Amino acid sequence: MTTAGTEPAPGLRDRKKRRTRAALAEAALRLVAERGLAQVTVEEISEAADVSPRTFFNYFACKDDALVGDHAGDVERLVARLAAAPPGAAVLTALRAALDEVIEEIHAERELWCLRMDVVARNPALLPRLLAGNAETERAIVEVVAARVGVDPDHGYPALVTAVSGAALRTAMARWAAHSDGPDLADLVDEAFAALAAGLPQPDRS
Amino acid sequence: MTTAGTEPAPGLRDRKKRRTRAALAEAALRLVAERGLAQVTVEEISEAADVSPRTFFNYFACKDDALVGDHAGDVERLVARLAAAPPGAAVLTALRAALDEVIEEIHAERELWCLRMDVVARNPALLPRLLAGNAETERAIVEVVAARVGVDPDHGYPALVTAVSGAALRTAMARWAAHSDGPDLADLVDEAFAALAAGLPQPDRS
Repeated sequence: MTTAGTEPAPGLRDRKKRRTRAALAEAALRLVAERGLAQVTVEEISEAADVSPRTFFNYFACKDDALVGDHAGDVERLVARLAAAPPGAAVLTALRAALDEVIEEIHAERELWCLRMDVVARNPALLPRLLAGNAETERAIVEVVAARVGVDPDHGYPALVTAVSGAALRTAMARWAAHSDGPDLADLVDEAFAALAAGLPQPDRS
Repeated sequence: MTTAGTEPAPGLRDRKKRRTRAALAEAALRLVAERGLAQVTVEEISEAADVSPRTFFNYFACKDDALVGDHAGDVERLVARLAAAPPGAAVLTALRAALDEVIEEIHAERELWCLRMDVVARNPALLPRLLAGNAETERAIVEVVAARVGVDPDHGYPALVTAVSGAALRTAMARWAAHSDGPDLADLVDEAFAALAAGLPQPDRS
């Protein structure tokens, strides 16, 4: 069922918002890749994405946020997906499932993500913001995992399984970014999580 | 056997060097903790450690290096220890054993390490240098692990097991730093590596 009013339907509105956000991120990354971090302003990014600076600030608090991605949105989705996983599922299985939507998006925006990894590597001044976002995501996940497992957040397990899953995702993303004709990101993440669940056994010699 | 000349014996010389390095790192961290990163010079650090700025530069290339620690030395030791592990040992066992010396040193310099973690948390401008060092260490370890396992460094396993071990060490260090009367760092790292080798099974409810 679609609404027939002047306002677009919620699904359409969400998609439009996501497109504007992606256009702003892409414009920011392309301009910074071309000129360097200090040589790009919010005004230039907004112009390149065909929106006003005011619209820019509806999506991102500052230039750096547009470059490193949307942690707040990711945290919210990951926590919701994790909370929705069947209570009986193993923590690694639940964490892997919670990543589905994020992985799908990264995969769909391959070029943007590769550009982002490249821009961050060339502009280490972006790292503090990126890491602050990662740390925030980790803290939120650790709390949900602790509640799920029924241990204190201070127990070593929630922090360990969360940090290790993050490391698995990052190494899978690095492999995926390095080989444009390689396996899908989801398959690489599956492979990494399967290795974790198996206790990281030594692979057969290649 | 000790040498009887005017030069100190190699063991003594090494210990003296290590003490000077630790004194410089401690002076740097204390001054930055007190005043903030921008308000501290190499001259002030050297004076506080009772050495000349020229001596400072024998140990560290710049102020930030004195604050984030000695990656080059760590890489060398880790790679040597890893190469010395029995060829039949599982990779996780070899990685854990390779960390012994580093963990012992961190444990012996608890106050310095806690101060370092605190200074880095308060001065995120140090993160790019810290991460560059971590990335360099990871790359070196990945190569040794790949050779050990007999797979291409491009294979997913060496990068995964290295990143995951790093995550395990970091979470163990965070727990150790948070509880001055808690278990030894070595025991916390052992616990984390045992959980990895077991496939991160869910712990009993606490």
